[in-house]
Amino acid sequence: MHEFELIKKYFSKIAKKNKSALKLNDDVFFDKKKEIVVSVDTYNIGNHFFDFKNPDLVIKKILRSSISDLICKGVEPKLYFIAGSGNKETFTKKNLIKISKALKDEQKKFNIFLSGGDTTFSNNLTFTISSIGYSKKIIYRNKASLNDDIYVTGNLGDSYVGLQILKKKIKVSRLLSNYFIKKYYLPELQIKLAKKLLNIASSSIDVSDGLIADMEKLINNQKNLSFVISEKNIPISLTLRKLMKMKKIKKISLVSNGDDYQILFTASENKFRIINKLSKVYGIKISKIGKIVSKNKKSIIINEKGKQIELINRGYVHQF
Amino acid sequence: MHEFELIKKYFSKIAKKNKSALKLNDDVFFDKKKEIVVSVDTYNIGNHFFDFKNPDLVIKKILRSSISDLICKGVEPKLYFIAGSGNKETFTKKNLIKISKALKDEQKKFNIFLSGGDTTFSNNLTFTISSIGYSKKIIYRNKASLNDDIYVTGNLGDSYVGLQILKKKIKVSRLLSNYFIKKYYLPELQIKLAKKLLNIASSSIDVSDGLIADMEKLINNQKNLSFVISEKNIPISLTLRKLMKMKKIKKISLVSNGDDYQILFTASENKFRIINKLSKVYGIKISKIGKIVSKNKKSIIINEKGKQIELINRGYVHQF
Repeated sequence: MHEFELIKKYFSKIAKKNKSALKLNDDVFFDKKKEIVVSVDTYNIGNHFFDFKNPDLVIKKILRSSISDLICKGVEPKLYFIAGSGNKETFTKKNLIKISKALKDEQKKFNIFLSGGDTTFSNNLTFTISSIGYSKKIIYRNKASLNDDIYVTGNLGDSYVGLQILKKKIKVSRLLSNYFIKKYYLPELQIKLAKKLLNIASSSIDVSDGLIADMEKLINNQKNLSFVISEKNIPISLTLRKLMKMKKIKKISLVSNGDDYQILFTASENKFRIINKLSKVYGIKISKIGKIVSKNKKSIIINEKGKQIELINRGYVHQF
Repeated sequence: MHEFELIKKYFSKIAKKNKSALKLNDDVFFDKKKEIVVSVDTYNIGNHFFDFKNPDLVIKKILRSSISDLICKGVEPKLYFIAGSGNKETFTKKNLIKISKALKDEQKKFNIFLSGGDTTFSNNLTFTISSIGYSKKIIYRNKASLNDDIYVTGNLGDSYVGLQILKKKIKVSRLLSNYFIKKYYLPELQIKLAKKLLNIASSSIDVSDGLIADMEKLINNQKNLSFVISEKNIPISLTLRKLMKMKKIKKISLVSNGDDYQILFTASENKFRIINKLSKVYGIKISKIGKIVSKNKKSIIINEKGKQIELINRGYVHQF
């Protein structure tokens, strides 16, 4: 067993002691009585971000990643706390000015407030962000029903390409490079949709590990369910479509990786019209990409040629 | 300017934007409307704990240090979140079992619940603990009045001696060593007093940096106030008294350092009787150790021989 799964196992056991409000198998903690929702995430250099050359962009990215956990659950974030461990090289005055400016931008954009934190010395740059929102209810994982439709907001894949460009694994023009790197660092969170989805979605998650992996997580504990996703319905940007043609990259490899922080959710079939209306009113793309089916049918992707690709062992597409 | 003061400066500036509930110059965040109190602290190996040979003790110590921030403000902690960054050597199965057992003990002792967290890979062992409590009010810093008495709960100095023993700077018998090391790792938090102090204390803080340093912090922003502390009234254990005689260590050097996580608070003179009663009812030592005076008088310690020692530049006793 991988060490981090082991940790999860041990911590879950302890957390189970609190019957009232704990959801350690979800991304957030929800205390229904107190109407508080909390998300805690740690970001390490070399793991969640690979350098600190653009501290403003890194801070924006990890802050968005943190509040995305609340937004995808139908909750508007209100407070955030940053605990940063770094050294003299990472926390220079110049960097602090950039970080400060970046946080101010984000606070204005998302109506959130820095409410505390801690700063300690470490040669291994690490940030832990705790985000808090207030809500009477949330959208859980593991609550999809048979025959529910599967939706995703915005576009997928841009962020992954941005990361590949940063890693110098893909080489493109300056213009394209700027576009994708921006998408990687500054994912467009669908905060306007958050509350609206509370009464529409049966389950939800944000796309942070890639579409398929997150879809697996979304129905993880529901042993009786599988899903069918139609590759051609997975939304991508025009720019990505252009790049795919130029570079002969397969769509499925792009969308089954990136962290675009879009909302992946399920909803019963009769919600189709209201979802379409929401999409128009808020000017946010919401695409129906698949369906929840019985476990007997196994999870599959129907590729653009109409071929059914089975997800063996509920694994990830990019593994085969 | 020290880099971490610089960080604080920049972060404080951003936090000030939220006028409603932020107290970034206090140890906790308090949202009065939502009645939520939050504390976030980071603990690094080599800084806040110097090894991980006793993961159970380290976890207990840092968890107590975190919830102490709430307790000293008159708030009972309810939830905690742990974000840990470590590697295969630090998160072995054996260590995880110990950590898990330790957390269970603490949960029972303090009636708190692990509510989430995150675990990531890092060669630099770091924990960030977020603690949350619910309360209609809290005791602030910077609210002491002229002529208020200064009190402290329990005993001071034991924890500092424990740390010196661990660092091999003091050598004592096995029996004494066990006593002090236990006091270092397992500070006795006065959780029973927490709520009771809400209507008694005018200001409060926990002793985490040493009595004088924390006293300075307690009245930090109150430019018109100073304090007088009587060395002979500073409470210490019988065991520490014994050690002081044996080793010829000065009391002031012990109490102006350690992190005993006792509650240091101020209260108006007329609260003396009720504080004494509380002390008896709960069987908790509460010592009156000094007085808040006008700034003109400067902060002083009256040593055991009756000599007044001035705290120049509001500095720390151990600096001169």
